[in-house]
Amino acid sequence: MTIKVTVWGENVHEQTNDVVARIYPEGMHACIADGLNEDPQIEARAVTLQDPEQGLPEALLDDTDVLLWWGHAAHGDVHDETVDRVQARVLQGMGLLVLHSAHYSRIFKRLMGTTCSLKWREAGERERLWVINPGHPIVQGLGSYLELPHSEMYGEPFAVPNPDEVIFISAFEGGEVFRSGLTYKRGNGKIFYFGPGHETYPIYYDDQVRRVLKNGVKWACPEGSRWIDNCPNVPPEQAPNPVEVKGEGLHKPGEEGFR
Amino acid sequence: MTIKVTVWGENVHEQTNDVVARIYPEGMHACIADGLNEDPQIEARAVTLQDPEQGLPEALLDDTDVLLWWGHAAHGDVHDETVDRVQARVLQGMGLLVLHSAHYSRIFKRLMGTTCSLKWREAGERERLWVINPGHPIVQGLGSYLELPHSEMYGEPFAVPNPDEVIFISAFEGGEVFRSGLTYKRGNGKIFYFGPGHETYPIYYDDQVRRVLKNGVKWACPEGSRWIDNCPNVPPEQAPNPVEVKGEGLHKPGEEGFR
Amino acid sequence: MTIKVTVWGENVHEQTNDVVARIYPEGMHACIADGLNEDPQIEARAVTLQDPEQGLPEALLDDTDVLLWWGHAAHGDVHDETVDRVQARVLQGMGLLVLHSAHYSRIFKRLMGTTCSLKWREAGERERLWVINPGHPIVQGLGSYLELPHSEMYGEPFAVPNPDEVIFISAFEGGEVFRSGLTYKRGNGKIFYFGPGHETYPIYYDDQVRRVLKNGVKWACPEGSRWIDNCPNVPPEQAPNPVEVKGEGLHKPGEEGFR
Amino acid sequence: MTIKVTVWGENVHEQTNDVVARIYPEGMHACIADGLNEDPQIEARAVTLQDPEQGLPEALLDDTDVLLWWGHAAHGDVHDETVDRVQARVLQGMGLLVLHSAHYSRIFKRLMGTTCSLKWREAGERERLWVINPGHPIVQGLGSYLELPHSEMYGEPFAVPNPDEVIFISAFEGGEVFRSGLTYKRGNGKIFYFGPGHETYPIYYDDQVRRVLKNGVKWACPEGSRWIDNCPNVPPEQAPNPVEVKGEGLHKPGEEGFR
Repeated sequence: MTIKVTVWGENVHEQTNDVVARIYPEGMHACIADGLNEDPQIEARAVTLQDPEQGLPEALLDDTDVLLWWGHAAHGDVHDETVDRVQARVLQGMGLLVLHSAHYSRIFKRLMGTTCSLKWREAGERERLWVINPGHPIVQGLGSYLELPHSEMYGEPFAVPNPDEVIFISAFEGGEVFRSGLTYKRGNGKIFYFGPGHETYPIYYDDQVRRVLKNGVKWACPEGSRWIDNCPNVPPEQAPNPVEVKGEGLHKPGEEGFR
Repeated sequence: MTIKVTVWGENVHEQTNDVVARIYPEGMHACIADGLNEDPQIEARAVTLQDPEQGLPEALLDDTDVLLWWGHAAHGDVHDETVDRVQARVLQGMGLLVLHSAHYSRIFKRLMGTTCSLKWREAGERERLWVINPGHPIVQGLGSYLELPHSEMYGEPFAVPNPDEVIFISAFEGGEVFRSGLTYKRGNGKIFYFGPGHETYPIYYDDQVRRVLKNGVKWACPEGSRWIDNCPNVPPEQAPNPVEVKGEGLHKPGEEGFR
Repeated sequence: MTIKVTVWGENVHEQTNDVVARIYPEGMHACIADGLNEDPQIEARAVTLQDPEQGLPEALLDDTDVLLWWGHAAHGDVHDETVDRVQARVLQGMGLLVLHSAHYSRIFKRLMGTTCSLKWREAGERERLWVINPGHPIVQGLGSYLELPHSEMYGEPFAVPNPDEVIFISAFEGGEVFRSGLTYKRGNGKIFYFGPGHETYPIYYDDQVRRVLKNGVKWACPEGSRWIDNCPNVPPEQAPNPVEVKGEGLHKPGEEGFR
Repeated sequence: MTIKVTVWGENVHEQTNDVVARIYPEGMHACIADGLNEDPQIEARAVTLQDPEQGLPEALLDDTDVLLWWGHAAHGDVHDETVDRVQARVLQGMGLLVLHSAHYSRIFKRLMGTTCSLKWREAGERERLWVINPGHPIVQGLGSYLELPHSEMYGEPFAVPNPDEVIFISAFEGGEVFRSGLTYKRGNGKIFYFGPGHETYPIYYDDQVRRVLKNGVKWACPEGSRWIDNCPNVPPEQAPNPVEVKGEGLHKPGEEGFR
C-alpha cells in the first residue's frame, strides 16, 4: 500500500535569504518531498505556510498518513487552529516527523509539554550522528554513524520529556553532544524528532539523511484504528453492573460535562 | 524543613451550587489546605481564581514548593499568562498535584500534550482505589485499597501519555476501571494526578484521601536545583574543541536565534 | 507475507489433570495455535517442553517471528540454555507473547528483571478486560471491554517494571483489578503480556481472546533488522578521530574484554 | 539522618596488576568509600568478593541504604545466591550505583534483562561527560560538563532498556559517544549507572567524580517503605465483593500456587 505523506514547509528563508534560495531554489519542502518520492511506497506532496488554511486543511490531514514539519523563522505565525488540527490528527494516529529547528515549532511544544530548548552554534562544523540501536527500522541502511561535513550545532540540554527511544546521538566538531533522533508516542501518533537540517547547508540532498527520512516515514505510519477521543457520559443504565444513583449531584441526566 | 504548598481552587461551584456550598462552606481549596496543614512539615495556603493575577502571581509561585490544582467549571477562564507562569515553575522543579476534574485544566493539558479526556458518570457510586505499589511513598499508611462510599465515576480510556508510574487503579461499583493515581516528570517538576474529589461529595474530609495528598506533597517536593532553561548561542571561541567557522550562515555573530 | 509463529506449551496439566485434559484434549498449545491459524497471514506451529531441546532448538527460533509462551507447573524445568536462546532471539527482534501464568516463567522474569508476582484466586469468577486505548492495534475488533464468565483472578500489585503501554486493565467479580495487557520493548523484541488463560476454563476457545492473540502476533512482528549485539573492541586506528594511546593499560592490543 | 552505604569491590586487579595496585594500594573499593565519607551525611563501608558470603550477607544488606558495585574480571565468580540477595534488596527499595565495567555484572544484567553490551577502547583518551539536565540532583555542583584527561572509551550501542532519564552523555577524544549516566527504577529501588571508572586511571580520586557519587547516593536513598512482594492467594471470603466459587479448579482451598 502507498503511504500518503505531506511535507509542511515554512518557506520563509527560501524567499528572503540568498544562501537558502540558492541551495533550495524550489524550497526545502520540495527537496524533502523529492527525497521521499524516490521510494515507490511513498507518495509525498509539499505544502507551505502561505497556502490556504496555512497548507493544512482538514481534508488534507485526513488524507495524510505521515506529516513532516520544517519551520524556523515563522513559528509564531502558525495559528491556534492549525496547531489544534495537527495535534488532533497526531493523537488519532497520524505520524509526525519534526525536523531540525521545528524543535521550537508550536506543534512540537504542544505535544511535548516542555520548552524544547537547546544550545546552538552556526559554524558549519562537522556533525556525526551515532546509531544507538542498529536494529531499529529508522536506521536501516546506515553504518555505525552518519556524518555531515557542515551542520549547525544543536547541543544538550535538550528540554524535552524522556523519549520512548533514543535513535541517534550527535557529536559535533566543537565537542558538544545532542540527542538528535528521538521517538515518542502521543495518543496513537508516532513522533520522530530528527536533528539535522539547517537551511544554509544542502543537508536534505544527502542520501543518508534521505534514507533516515524514508525509514522514519515507514516507522511512523499509522497502525490500529483512527480513534477520536471525547469525554462521554455513561448513564447508570449503561454501566456493566447495576448502579442505583445515590447522593446529590451537579449534573441533570444527559447533561454534558464541563470543559 | 517546611514544605511551602499553595492550593489553587477555582471556587465557582462553592458560590453557585447549594450542595457544594453546604459541604464546603469555606471552599474546597480551604478544606484541602486544612487537611495538608494537619502535617507540621507542611505549610499550605489557599488561593482562588478570583484573587489578583488569578491567585498565582510570580512571587507566590517562586515561594511555592508544591502546587495543588482543583478546577472544573471555569478551566476556560484561566489566562494564558497564568498557565505560562505555572508551566515554567513546574519545569523549574515545583511539584504539581492535579486533582479530579483538573484532568481538563489548561495546565494539565499543556503539560501532557494530549486531550486528557475520560469517561464519567455522576451516580454517587462506590469507588475503590487499589494500591499498585505498596512500597511507594505516596501510598504509605494505606491498606491494599482505599474505599470511598460515594464518588463520581471516571473511566478509561484516560487519554494521557504513558505515566512514569501507576500509583492507583480504581474499580467503580458500576464496573468501570480508571488509572486514578499517575506520576510524571516534566522538566524537573514532579506531577501527580489523583482522581477522586467530586465537589458534591465530602471527599477532601476523608482521612485516607488527606493522607494521600500529604504523601503526594512530600513526594513532589523539589530536589536538585531550580534550572531555568533557555536557548543559548555558544560562539565558536567557547566550544570545548577549536572550531573554525566554515560555510555560509544565517545569523550574524552574537545574534539571537528564532523562536 | 506470512508471519511464522511458534506456540510453546508446558503440556503438563493436560497429562495430569482430568479437567484440563477434558477441555484441551490436544493440549492448550494446539488450541492456541489453531486459533492463530484461523488467520491466513499467520502460520503457527505448536511445540512443548517434552520435545527435543525443550521444543526450542536454535533453528526453530531462527525461523520464528513471534513466540507465544504458556507455562504454569513446570517453570523450574526449563533449562538455562533454553532461556538463554529465547532471550537472545527476543533481543534480536523476535516478538514474544507471554500468557497468563507465564508471568512466572523464567524467560519473562529474565526479561523483566523483577519478581513478576501478583495476587490470585481460583474461583471461576467473571473477568472484564477494559480497553485502555481503543486505537491500539492489539484491541482492534473489540468493544470497550472483553468479558470472560469464568476466569482466575490475578490482582495487583503486579511486580513488573513500568510498561511502555497498558493495553488492558481487568476488573474481577471479587473486586480486584489487574493490568492484564502490557507491552514492553527489550532490545528489538516486542513483548506483550496477556493475563487470561487459566487451564481449567476454555478461555483459548473464546473468539475475542483469539482476536487479541492474532492482533498481538501482528503487533509483535519483527521490524528493522536482526541485530546481534556483542562487545567489540575499537582499536585506536579505527576511531573516527585520531587517537594516540596515552597512559597505562590493562589489555594488550587485540585482547578480548572481560565478561 | 545518616545514609548507610556499602561499596562492593571485586578486588582482583588490585592484587594482580601492578598499575592498578600502584594507583589503588588500598583497593578501589576503599578509595570510593573514602570519597563518599567526605560527606558527613554518608557512612560508607567497603566489602569485597573475597569476604565471607562474598561480602554481602543478608544482615549487611538489611543495614544498607545504597550499594555501589564495581567489578570487571570476576563477574562470573559472583554466586547466584549473592545476585539473588542483592536483587531482592533492590526491589525492596535499596539504592544501587553500578560503576563502569559493572555494566557486565550479573546483578546489572539481572535487573536490566538485556545483554548490557557496549563498544570499548583502552587508549587513555579524554572523556567529556555532558550534563543532560542541569537541575537534576545527581549533577549538582558540576558545570555543563565533567572532563577526564584519561579514560577508557565506552561507546554506543549500549544494550540496555530505555532509561527513566539520561543524566550524562559522554563524548570521547576518538569521536564515540556513550550514555554514561542512566537512571532506572526497579521495584522500589533506584538504580544509577555511571560510566567512568577504569582501574588503570585514578578516576575515583577526581573531585567531580566523587561529587557525582555523593549526589548519586543521596538520589538513590530509599523512600516509602520496604515492601517484600510475594504471590498471595486471596480466598473468596476475603474478596471485597462476595464471590461464590464457580466452575472446576486446579488448587484445593489454601493450597500454594506454582512457581
